[in-house]
Amino acid sequence: MAKKIVVIGGGTGTYVALTGLREYDVSLTAVVTMMDSGGSTGRLRDQLGVLPPGDIRQALVALSESDEVWRKLFTYRFDNGDLSGHNFGNLFISALEKMTGDFSEALKLASELLQIKGQVLPVTYSKSDLCVELEDGQVIEGETYIDELESNKKRSKIKRAYLKPTAPINEAVVAAIQEADLVLIGPGDLYTSLLVNLLVDGVVDALSSTKAKVVYALNLMTKYGQTTSYTGQDHVSDLEQYLGKGVLDYVLVNNARPDDDTLKIYEKEQEILNVDNLKENGYRIVHADMLADEKIQKPAADKLKRSLIRHDPDKLAKVIMSLG
Amino acid sequence: MAKKIVVIGGGTGTYVALTGLREYDVSLTAVVTMMDSGGSTGRLRDQLGVLPPGDIRQALVALSESDEVWRKLFTYRFDNGDLSGHNFGNLFISALEKMTGDFSEALKLASELLQIKGQVLPVTYSKSDLCVELEDGQVIEGETYIDELESNKKRSKIKRAYLKPTAPINEAVVAAIQEADLVLIGPGDLYTSLLVNLLVDGVVDALSSTKAKVVYALNLMTKYGQTTSYTGQDHVSDLEQYLGKGVLDYVLVNNARPDDDTLKIYEKEQEILNVDNLKENGYRIVHADMLADEKIQKPAADKLKRSLIRHDPDKLAKVIMSLG
Repeated sequence: MAKKIVVIGGGTGTYVALTGLREYDVSLTAVVTMMDSGGSTGRLRDQLGVLPPGDIRQALVALSESDEVWRKLFTYRFDNGDLSGHNFGNLFISALEKMTGDFSEALKLASELLQIKGQVLPVTYSKSDLCVELEDGQVIEGETYIDELESNKKRSKIKRAYLKPTAPINEAVVAAIQEADLVLIGPGDLYTSLLVNLLVDGVVDALSSTKAKVVYALNLMTKYGQTTSYTGQDHVSDLEQYLGKGVLDYVLVNNARPDDDTLKIYEKEQEILNVDNLKENGYRIVHADMLADEKIQKPAADKLKRSLIRHDPDKLAKVIMSLG
Repeated sequence: MAKKIVVIGGGTGTYVALTGLREYDVSLTAVVTMMDSGGSTGRLRDQLGVLPPGDIRQALVALSESDEVWRKLFTYRFDNGDLSGHNFGNLFISALEKMTGDFSEALKLASELLQIKGQVLPVTYSKSDLCVELEDGQVIEGETYIDELESNKKRSKIKRAYLKPTAPINEAVVAAIQEADLVLIGPGDLYTSLLVNLLVDGVVDALSSTKAKVVYALNLMTKYGQTTSYTGQDHVSDLEQYLGKGVLDYVLVNNARPDDDTLKIYEKEQEILNVDNLKENGYRIVHADMLADEKIQKPAADKLKRSLIRHDPDKLAKVIMSLG
């Protein structure tokens, strides 16, 4: 029987993981964050009162088996006029939600059009925002303000993250985690793509009680403002602050080095290669080359920082599938 | 063999005709104007440099055999924020055109998604605007300025209409007209939905040389600014000014009277029931009850004047199919 794999996250890292895993004979579920508040998604959320479509859309495209044209259409971004910056896939999901009055119905229809292999589930159907309290006492509310810190601004370390208001888990996510053989957390921005999911009421309970192997794919680089100057161990410590000890079974650590020119671009933005200082501590550490060979540039209209250094979908998936 | 019918127009009247005719075993082609410059369509045209999607979209929805949800999605109009007033179907067609760089490819994909019975053809693939010269010498350029005259403003009679720049016929339209058994012009606003098509280079030639019966469905009411105070005969005279004499085979004239309350609403906007003063003159006149029983209201977000008095799709189609 096909292995059941749940990928928890949102954004580019989850897209990469899903893209690699879909090539295997597996039953895939993507569980994605619903707290994005920036860019096209943030505008739709604020102006139309819809749930944020962006992370859902990326996961749908990753799992789509329809003609390339539909996948391309879903990622198409308008670059002029009223629509400038809006992503067509976001408009599609939001129009369906407005029309049907039901995000799950919108998701079902988009999944049909894109002929999804597996399923994409929002971690919650509630409207909620990610908030962080810093060590200096400052509180930041909303993912976009946490995520988009300019590299010349200083920010104290994150002490605590929480959702406002609290959000209950989508029951379909409970079932998917319970039935899974393996749950992958990451790769992705530690707070805005990964922990944001664990903060939803019921997610940690499900992860604690499942028989599935729970795997964390450590990011390649630190993320300024979220994990500034973090080591590998710092990432895992923050993760276990919410997940609890003894839940993680594996931590995946890349051991290939990006080229120095690219690293210098990141250094200018105060982002560095994650230092591998991890020691096995209730979980196993798997080292492997998981680095994408080619530098990847996001389209210019995407104002988020470009991810030049990424996991390679095939290499990442191969490591995950080897975990048995 | 199924009768081949071409419907020339754009807008609500064409939607009604197609909706009625699709219930018969006929091969349908909708030929629609590409000169709309108002509303959502006008914004997309100006800001994205695309061809105007609005009339195409309405015809696609009329001929769609897909699930109702896709038809509804194509007519869904956003009512808040950046997207306010934009029609989802318009965004869909324009995103596909921007993505593929090819309107015909966009139309093909939209036709597939909506599972079109028959085909929808733009009268031209050129960018062009409808212009009119009035009897007082004033020139109005652009459909939106011709179309949206407030009822308290005065305007001299239209003397001459032309396209700027001139536009060549879509070759697929030539073929459709040549092979047709019947070509229906209308119902629809005389200048902005009907004549605008006849002004495209090659359309009158095709209509003059086809063996198809050429049928004009006279509007129910005058349209302020386009056909103010016109009689039925005035409509046909303007049409023949461009079409030439001897091309029309039939003129369809409604003979059922709308209720007086509704007529009063129109009278306030200086629009009246078309006076039936037509005499057969190379064409036959067919009188029939073609009036929709129910008053129909367009959605509030649609800023165009509401069409309370419309043709009934079934009654109109029945008359057309009876022409033999």
